[in-house]
Amino acid sequence: MSNKIGIIGDGHVGSTVAHQLLVSGLVDDLVLIDVNEAKVTADELDFQDAMANLKHHTNIVINDYSALKDADIIISAFGNISLEAGGERFAELNYNRERIGDIAASIKKSGFDGILVAITNPVDAITNMYQGLTGLPKKHVIGTGTLLDTSRMKRAVGSRLNVDPRSVEGFNLGEHGNSQFTAWSTVKVLEQPITELVKDKPWKLEDLNDEIKFGGQTVYKGKQYTNYGIAAAVTRLVETIESDARTELPVSNYQEKYGTYLSYPAIVGRDGIVQQVQLALTDEEEKLLAKSAETIKEKSK
Amino acid sequence: MSNKIGIIGDGHVGSTVAHQLLVSGLVDDLVLIDVNEAKVTADELDFQDAMANLKHHTNIVINDYSALKDADIIISAFGNISLEAGGERFAELNYNRERIGDIAASIKKSGFDGILVAITNPVDAITNMYQGLTGLPKKHVIGTGTLLDTSRMKRAVGSRLNVDPRSVEGFNLGEHGNSQFTAWSTVKVLEQPITELVKDKPWKLEDLNDEIKFGGQTVYKGKQYTNYGIAAAVTRLVETIESDARTELPVSNYQEKYGTYLSYPAIVGRDGIVQQVQLALTDEEEKLLAKSAETIKEKSK
Amino acid sequence: MSNKIGIIGDGHVGSTVAHQLLVSGLVDDLVLIDVNEAKVTADELDFQDAMANLKHHTNIVINDYSALKDADIIISAFGNISLEAGGERFAELNYNRERIGDIAASIKKSGFDGILVAITNPVDAITNMYQGLTGLPKKHVIGTGTLLDTSRMKRAVGSRLNVDPRSVEGFNLGEHGNSQFTAWSTVKVLEQPITELVKDKPWKLEDLNDEIKFGGQTVYKGKQYTNYGIAAAVTRLVETIESDARTELPVSNYQEKYGTYLSYPAIVGRDGIVQQVQLALTDEEEKLLAKSAETIKEKSK
Amino acid sequence: MSNKIGIIGDGHVGSTVAHQLLVSGLVDDLVLIDVNEAKVTADELDFQDAMANLKHHTNIVINDYSALKDADIIISAFGNISLEAGGERFAELNYNRERIGDIAASIKKSGFDGILVAITNPVDAITNMYQGLTGLPKKHVIGTGTLLDTSRMKRAVGSRLNVDPRSVEGFNLGEHGNSQFTAWSTVKVLEQPITELVKDKPWKLEDLNDEIKFGGQTVYKGKQYTNYGIAAAVTRLVETIESDARTELPVSNYQEKYGTYLSYPAIVGRDGIVQQVQLALTDEEEKLLAKSAETIKEKSK
Repeated sequence: MSNKIGIIGDGHVGSTVAHQLLVSGLVDDLVLIDVNEAKVTADELDFQDAMANLKHHTNIVINDYSALKDADIIISAFGNISLEAGGERFAELNYNRERIGDIAASIKKSGFDGILVAITNPVDAITNMYQGLTGLPKKHVIGTGTLLDTSRMKRAVGSRLNVDPRSVEGFNLGEHGNSQFTAWSTVKVLEQPITELVKDKPWKLEDLNDEIKFGGQTVYKGKQYTNYGIAAAVTRLVETIESDARTELPVSNYQEKYGTYLSYPAIVGRDGIVQQVQLALTDEEEKLLAKSAETIKEKSK
Repeated sequence: MSNKIGIIGDGHVGSTVAHQLLVSGLVDDLVLIDVNEAKVTADELDFQDAMANLKHHTNIVINDYSALKDADIIISAFGNISLEAGGERFAELNYNRERIGDIAASIKKSGFDGILVAITNPVDAITNMYQGLTGLPKKHVIGTGTLLDTSRMKRAVGSRLNVDPRSVEGFNLGEHGNSQFTAWSTVKVLEQPITELVKDKPWKLEDLNDEIKFGGQTVYKGKQYTNYGIAAAVTRLVETIESDARTELPVSNYQEKYGTYLSYPAIVGRDGIVQQVQLALTDEEEKLLAKSAETIKEKSK
Repeated sequence: MSNKIGIIGDGHVGSTVAHQLLVSGLVDDLVLIDVNEAKVTADELDFQDAMANLKHHTNIVINDYSALKDADIIISAFGNISLEAGGERFAELNYNRERIGDIAASIKKSGFDGILVAITNPVDAITNMYQGLTGLPKKHVIGTGTLLDTSRMKRAVGSRLNVDPRSVEGFNLGEHGNSQFTAWSTVKVLEQPITELVKDKPWKLEDLNDEIKFGGQTVYKGKQYTNYGIAAAVTRLVETIESDARTELPVSNYQEKYGTYLSYPAIVGRDGIVQQVQLALTDEEEKLLAKSAETIKEKSK
Repeated sequence: MSNKIGIIGDGHVGSTVAHQLLVSGLVDDLVLIDVNEAKVTADELDFQDAMANLKHHTNIVINDYSALKDADIIISAFGNISLEAGGERFAELNYNRERIGDIAASIKKSGFDGILVAITNPVDAITNMYQGLTGLPKKHVIGTGTLLDTSRMKRAVGSRLNVDPRSVEGFNLGEHGNSQFTAWSTVKVLEQPITELVKDKPWKLEDLNDEIKFGGQTVYKGKQYTNYGIAAAVTRLVETIESDARTELPVSNYQEKYGTYLSYPAIVGRDGIVQQVQLALTDEEEKLLAKSAETIKEKSK
């Protein structure tokens, strides 16, 4: 059957995700939901005004939870409110915690049994909540997590070495938030571990850490939201699921060891998280990960 | 050589156009320019954070007019400020008139000799000005004009009859503004002139006129700007030019008869407006067109 | 659910269709079937050797009719054997008539209840047979018919007038075979009926008729098969169905008036032929169509 | 400027490459050249018959070397004659050696100064010859080399472990021929070196070696040529060059150390081979590589 995708939350992120999916021809039926009726009605019409000039046709339905029943994937993009540059994602938690109960109940009521992808921040805590509230199998609930942070790391490394970010290997792990970190032991570029390669350079990995973090803040400062990086990340995740590609991606998945969702590479396919992967981290990285897990669990209470 | 495209103005429209071009793989080198340095820096970084998850790589340069020298196409998207719903585009004119001189001078100084595509409103007057100020050949300056209005008409007609908007033929003509109109004599769907087909229907063409106009206003009201419809229109125009497709499109092109740019179908290719087309309009439509031309000329003074 | 498409017949046409679907990212699950086990095994492996360098992942299954049970679309591409240039499609009929019984039975046995698209020649007769043998609803069985002939006409007209074939309107009708014809009364380019436009030209419509017919023969002569034109036609048809685009396409659909499948424009969507369209043909065109219908019925006996 | 690509040789490989480029929208102007005038004329027409149903327009010119003057990229695909399954590529050498002189002279005469990509086998020897004959800078002449063998290795490894081939890292090196080999020390999947991971498995790396080699032969046996895998490889290479992506790819590039072209990962961009990469191979792998280099040099005499 044709691809059917729901997006809950039509703010800067949700609408940009919708746009990328439409332009990419990756969605046949789109269900777009938002509490701001005027906004979602406007976007529906604006997308339909694009249709005569797009290559792929998409059917759009708005604000109808019952249409999610046979969706393949639901993307939770609500509540990504604009925060002060560098702001703490805790602030969002209080706002989003109040709303997730109703939304999860509406999803459950629709009879949806596909894959739930969360972007809503603080994404790891929200993913924990979604899984508990919907009762969906753990492997069918996924947070975008550090897929975005990893692409920021690849951008920073690639930019330093003048190499395609897609040719940089490695992962950012843990919470998609302040406790996330680049697992430098996993990063390889030009076929060398970056920890070796950096020895000859006038810059240090700490400089890159700053670039990765300040990069996110630069975007916030310049426009009070981020949308393109996260839209590309979630679009890739969606295509991976639909095509059952079994691609390795650093997304937020349930880690038994820590008793929480957190970002760690896993094999992703049509059945969600189809296999978990084991990294050989350094002791320090393991500690950072454990600490990050604690932060998430704290927020998930 | 690879495709190189410049976008001047990184607001809602400019950045959405950039996003669609990147996602579609239609641009190899992108030059993004805006007076708001923080915003354009933010978008540059946000797009680069997308790159590790996109299928096509794009190189981005910001705020460097000299980089436009060898661009194939420059898209003028500045000054599409948010207006009150249904607002008069005259208001924009005063704002944009002050800025176009400097921008056109910077384009000229860069040595650019490609195709200039204007979205900036009031687009027909602005296109007139751009041609005069840059001295580019008339056929190399094009306004998006009623390409968007036409897609709105196709959406409205297609929606009524439950047919793909791409299977609706016909054009909106004249000014991309209040004096634009659907040339109903050109509209055909289900292989019938809509003027015939409507006779059996419980609705009238006037209802559709309202839907087309109110549609635009609904989008404005809901989000204080429109971006997806226009981004799809300009992306299609850009691809038509780059691939020298010689497609018939209702865009704003210089009409000798009226002494002004206005929207009327033309054949578009790598050399810009490569052939003009002659419609067999009704007398009333001809009058509406003449009147629309007058409005544009008034604004272009 | 993800897109699942079956292709029966992995010759020049079937494998090229598979290639285009894979490259376009239009198929998540592909079932490829051919009596030549070595050939279909070779293509499966060759496609899988492409996968690391393609943008969209596709899962491939070969020679398993039971996998067609939940396919959205089955494309019948078997039996398009190489014929002498200009050869009569009757020759193929005898070859294909022997095989269609088993194939239709295997499709039926799989429990398939999607849309069956036939390319196998003589396509209109074969489509009649498929519908009868499978018992699928008439609207769920479609032949590619003159979608290819129409694109050849658009190529010939567009080439003469130096216009994008996509900007040429009109249809070839009837049998996809020797009795097909261009309904010149439906052809419009540069916003003029071609019957008017041709009056000023040094060439005649008869010349174009020749170009359209000889074109097909030139391809046959040069490589003993055709594949790219038909692959583009069927890919467009498949995307139209999957996305429920409701596009108007000249495909072979069951015409009550004639008691047979034949090519005539119809609105195509996820439910197959969702609406039929009525052309205002000339008397001569009506006669040609009736005659073409007779030819098809003769072959369908 | 728009993308312009030349393909010399319109056999199974050349025409499939052309098809993939057209379908992917990666070429605006295509120059297709073959000594078999009937075949290339047939393909030109067949592609043009596809154009009305394709999403991206491409202009096609055939058998005009002078049109290559301003091409960005020329792909040499001639002479990939069908060989006996498992046949020695030396046989092709004699056939192709006779022709490359004239072809290289025609390329040179056209004034072409872009990137020359060779598929023609034996590809490494042919690439050596092309560089010498055209006098193009070494970095502007590239052979597809083991980009295909590497994707075969990724298919074999991915298939064993049920992982997306795009999530398998590593390279096949040396000659694209019998002396090529998988550098297993570079292969990583599921974040483990495959040399470690294989220890727990009931299969051995030798089994995979066989699968990779026999795979190629299976394709040859089943259809007497291979085309889809190589078309995907060269399409990716072309897009990497056009978009200046600076991606790391295992292609045939000139290695000073060995005094010959051979496949080894390098960073590829608009300026061809923009940076070379240094692997940390095992002693045995280094020996295999040196031996492979000797084989190539022998053939290049």
